[in-house]
Amino acid sequence: MDPILVEVTRGGRVESVHRGAVAVVDADGAVALAMGDIDAAVFPRSAVKALQALPLVESGAADSLGLTDAEIALACASHGGEPAHVATAEAMLGKAGQEASALECGAHWPSYDVAARALAASGATATALHNNCSGKHAGFICLACASGAEPAGYIQPDHPTMRRITAALAETTGTVLDERNRGTDGCSIPTYAIPLKALALAFARFGTGTGWHPDRAAAAVRIRAAVAEHPFMVAGTRRFDTEVMQAFGARAFTKTGAEGVYCVALPDLGLGIAVKCDDGAGRAAEVVTAALLQRYLGGGVPERWAHPVLRNWNGIEVGTLRATHLSGATR
Amino acid sequence: MDPILVEVTRGGRVESVHRGAVAVVDADGAVALAMGDIDAAVFPRSAVKALQALPLVESGAADSLGLTDAEIALACASHGGEPAHVATAEAMLGKAGQEASALECGAHWPSYDVAARALAASGATATALHNNCSGKHAGFICLACASGAEPAGYIQPDHPTMRRITAALAETTGTVLDERNRGTDGCSIPTYAIPLKALALAFARFGTGTGWHPDRAAAAVRIRAAVAEHPFMVAGTRRFDTEVMQAFGARAFTKTGAEGVYCVALPDLGLGIAVKCDDGAGRAAEVVTAALLQRYLGGGVPERWAHPVLRNWNGIEVGTLRATHLSGATR
Repeated sequence: MDPILVEVTRGGRVESVHRGAVAVVDADGAVALAMGDIDAAVFPRSAVKALQALPLVESGAADSLGLTDAEIALACASHGGEPAHVATAEAMLGKAGQEASALECGAHWPSYDVAARALAASGATATALHNNCSGKHAGFICLACASGAEPAGYIQPDHPTMRRITAALAETTGTVLDERNRGTDGCSIPTYAIPLKALALAFARFGTGTGWHPDRAAAAVRIRAAVAEHPFMVAGTRRFDTEVMQAFGARAFTKTGAEGVYCVALPDLGLGIAVKCDDGAGRAAEVVTAALLQRYLGGGVPERWAHPVLRNWNGIEVGTLRATHLSGATR
Repeated sequence: MDPILVEVTRGGRVESVHRGAVAVVDADGAVALAMGDIDAAVFPRSAVKALQALPLVESGAADSLGLTDAEIALACASHGGEPAHVATAEAMLGKAGQEASALECGAHWPSYDVAARALAASGATATALHNNCSGKHAGFICLACASGAEPAGYIQPDHPTMRRITAALAETTGTVLDERNRGTDGCSIPTYAIPLKALALAFARFGTGTGWHPDRAAAAVRIRAAVAEHPFMVAGTRRFDTEVMQAFGARAFTKTGAEGVYCVALPDLGLGIAVKCDDGAGRAAEVVTAALLQRYLGGGVPERWAHPVLRNWNGIEVGTLRATHLSGATR
């Protein structure tokens, strides 16, 4: 039974609670903090996009196509579909000699509601470029094209490009990834259930390169620097990852995944963090991640994320979200 | 510890789970089904709008202002902000001699995303009429005006109109409602923490009138008939309450509340149901409510709600939501 990690209050009472598990692991695999079942396998969803972007960089594909740091950051993104995200994804595809029609992620309206309404007001409609995963998919297509592969079908598990991406995920997490632990993600690529502890280890090493081939370690350095330089690209306006990395710079790499997942690298401390909220609540995963950043980095999380307040439609404070147990947990 | 009520699956694995409590009670207060802690007090939020609409009807205010059944249904609504909802709320205010500026619920964009984008495309912006609670608030203003009260400040706990509404809620739930169990709702009116069992009892009696003053019992009949006739008004396009009541007509009254609450009256069976998901997940409360409707009404829930399927942006089925334990629970 995973513990309660977050309480949602209203009028001084606890209205709702979120349970979950937290693994904090160093680059040698030693567990620094465990709450709940950290051996349970969870679908990391979009939280591992940075690991899935490693082949794009370590293969030399990013350099051969002249991808910019902003474009590399977008390859790790769950973005809001804002104009800069859309333009950057389109530019990546252009460098691969492709167009938006090559994207196999499906179309959806921008997840940032202001951007969605602006798009509607312009008389345009949603395309695959607005899909929050369009940067990751553009990166996959860049990898395929730079490798001389036909990009069509790149979302399939047995496409040569997807095999390389899955191999990187298997190697960095030390996990066997096959049809037995495979599901399909929102953007149609495979997602694999991986123990929370293994995800934390992968992100510890994403921050340190420990035990990795030098090319892969160098790719991680490049990706972390790109995201630290362009945190807007990995998420967007009013988003946790963007605002937290704007505050911490290269000291923290954070990435959300659907269904209450978070993965974090703290390079200076040599730690990796993986969070899964049992109920899939993103709001809870953000609160837990903020509390862990406060704990390990000694503060600095933007107030809006460190101490979230629930306000109603008149702007009146009606409640809070607060992390429980984390401040008192054994490191 | 409340049990797991809903599992969310992906690729044949359980990806997330939702815990919660369920109370099914008859009109004499006998418990027909209990799962989890049904004595715990929960904020019912919008799930009790029909109880809060009783004074509007039982006082004669609705008739004196000539409110239609569609308008009475909207007074019980958490609507999507679609054009018909907005027009109906405005018409209610007009009958009270008021305008949209009298609404104290705050403005927000239509919760139905298609309606929000259409509004943006029209060049207009969101007003309080688009607030999902605008019908309830229009009903409160109608009650105030028909009673000769000044509507301004009607959202305050000590406003004479809100006192009447709170008294109806206290009487129907048999619960003391005061500052000790009070919070503020999203639309700025008070919400009171009430035991789940008491909410279920109130809805059993909302379906039967058992033990209620004849004027109140008649008001419940009128409200139920109005909602059964106009289920679009209580929610909107692609919404659970609308589609389920379109299917069941007067055999089921269902109403969602924020943070994973559902209240249901089954008049023919003399039962009331109250559901609270611990984590506040609306998706889980819908699945649980659908399973309970299947159980007690012998099927008939629209397939999309009875067996929800998760599809990704390419329309591929990637998982399911399924109720656990409910089919095997002791009645």
